[in-house]
Amino acid sequence: MAGTFFTVGLGPGDPDLMTVKAARIIGAVPVIAYFAKRGHSGHARGIVQGRTRADVEEVRLDYPFTTEVSLNDPEYAVTIGAFYEMSAACLATRLDAGKDVALLCEGDPFFYGSSMYLYDRLHGSYTHEVVPGICGMSGCWAAAGTPIVHGDDVLTVLPGTLDEESLTTRLRDCDGAVIMKVGRNLPKIRTALARAGVADRAIYVERGTMPGQRIVPLAEFHDAPAPYFSMILVPGRQRPR
Amino acid sequence: MAGTFFTVGLGPGDPDLMTVKAARIIGAVPVIAYFAKRGHSGHARGIVQGRTRADVEEVRLDYPFTTEVSLNDPEYAVTIGAFYEMSAACLATRLDAGKDVALLCEGDPFFYGSSMYLYDRLHGSYTHEVVPGICGMSGCWAAAGTPIVHGDDVLTVLPGTLDEESLTTRLRDCDGAVIMKVGRNLPKIRTALARAGVADRAIYVERGTMPGQRIVPLAEFHDAPAPYFSMILVPGRQRPR
Repeated sequence: MAGTFFTVGLGPGDPDLMTVKAARIIGAVPVIAYFAKRGHSGHARGIVQGRTRADVEEVRLDYPFTTEVSLNDPEYAVTIGAFYEMSAACLATRLDAGKDVALLCEGDPFFYGSSMYLYDRLHGSYTHEVVPGICGMSGCWAAAGTPIVHGDDVLTVLPGTLDEESLTTRLRDCDGAVIMKVGRNLPKIRTALARAGVADRAIYVERGTMPGQRIVPLAEFHDAPAPYFSMILVPGRQRPR
Repeated sequence: MAGTFFTVGLGPGDPDLMTVKAARIIGAVPVIAYFAKRGHSGHARGIVQGRTRADVEEVRLDYPFTTEVSLNDPEYAVTIGAFYEMSAACLATRLDAGKDVALLCEGDPFFYGSSMYLYDRLHGSYTHEVVPGICGMSGCWAAAGTPIVHGDDVLTVLPGTLDEESLTTRLRDCDGAVIMKVGRNLPKIRTALARAGVADRAIYVERGTMPGQRIVPLAEFHDAPAPYFSMILVPGRQRPR
């Protein structure tokens, strides 16, 4: 009998912000799998350190790119597609051998998570379960002590990779906003926030809920480029209660 | 010495989707507090059933309204403001007596949660901690097996209380969307989804991750009105990978 395929959200970084369910699955499965960038230990892997079975088999899935390739580049689609196919085949081998496999995902698996591409390829063939996790952004606004939306507020989640014009228009049009994928997009994001008139509300969060956490008003952040694990929060809630 | 004020997110409903940290705090504090509607047992309270200290003191905070009053009605603001003042005072009494207090919150406390109004009133005066929780929407898209956004997708979270025109415009303009507070707003939401051309992607989720969970394409849902614990998901991800 084939094993069960678990897609497990691990939350924003603090291992204590893993769910009870995730912790139980991570401690029980004979195989864990995780994505990592070449030369890095893997963020999701780090979260479960010391929480797996002593004899656990680890399947490390190295992204084929070490630097960012544009999502719109046709080569990106081909290469990354082949990588997900190969990764799914790797996990299928273990599942076919009757072993349960947990695919580790930082944050929430179905919210900008690469794990969805393996879920796509495997869920039709195996017993499976998706365990949601706390999104990185929830960890960040809790750490910042900043409620993000209330009442009739609209929340917009924006990838910092969008062009300046799109960012500006969307920021003008929302109550609360979260900008992900900040990194080298920060100068453009900063301009868009100013043009939309919300720069004074913007909060910069780096490594939210993790060691080295840093939270400052964006106006007081002057480093460049921002690291990958950074995010900008624009709290809504302009109508107090 | 005064107690610590914990604002604790409990996640979407399944008690196993509480974080390890939340479970530990809930099992340790001498006082829990929670909001509830008159005549109902309290959703947040239900999630922690059997997980608190045997001698825990429960502070139930009954909302002053049993039926919905418009958020824009001036009477609403006055009455609800007084209610939050009184609730904060109730918790302050316990904190001043040196007792740690956990305010229970379904979902994530800073994402449309009433707990933020007590956080506003108490966090300046007491040692405090906010524990994020899995948002209801994460629980719903995991339960539905539907990744919501990837890559450069924009996610928009919309309260179903918005007018039809606003809903339509915003739905036209996003990749993925979540519509909260469905209830009696369903007919209007349905029209907006159709006008925006996304009705065929819409998924109706009722009591996500809880007993009685129901997940169907919106086109196949014909009951009215929808219950309070319902949500509509419009998956983004129109560019496959």
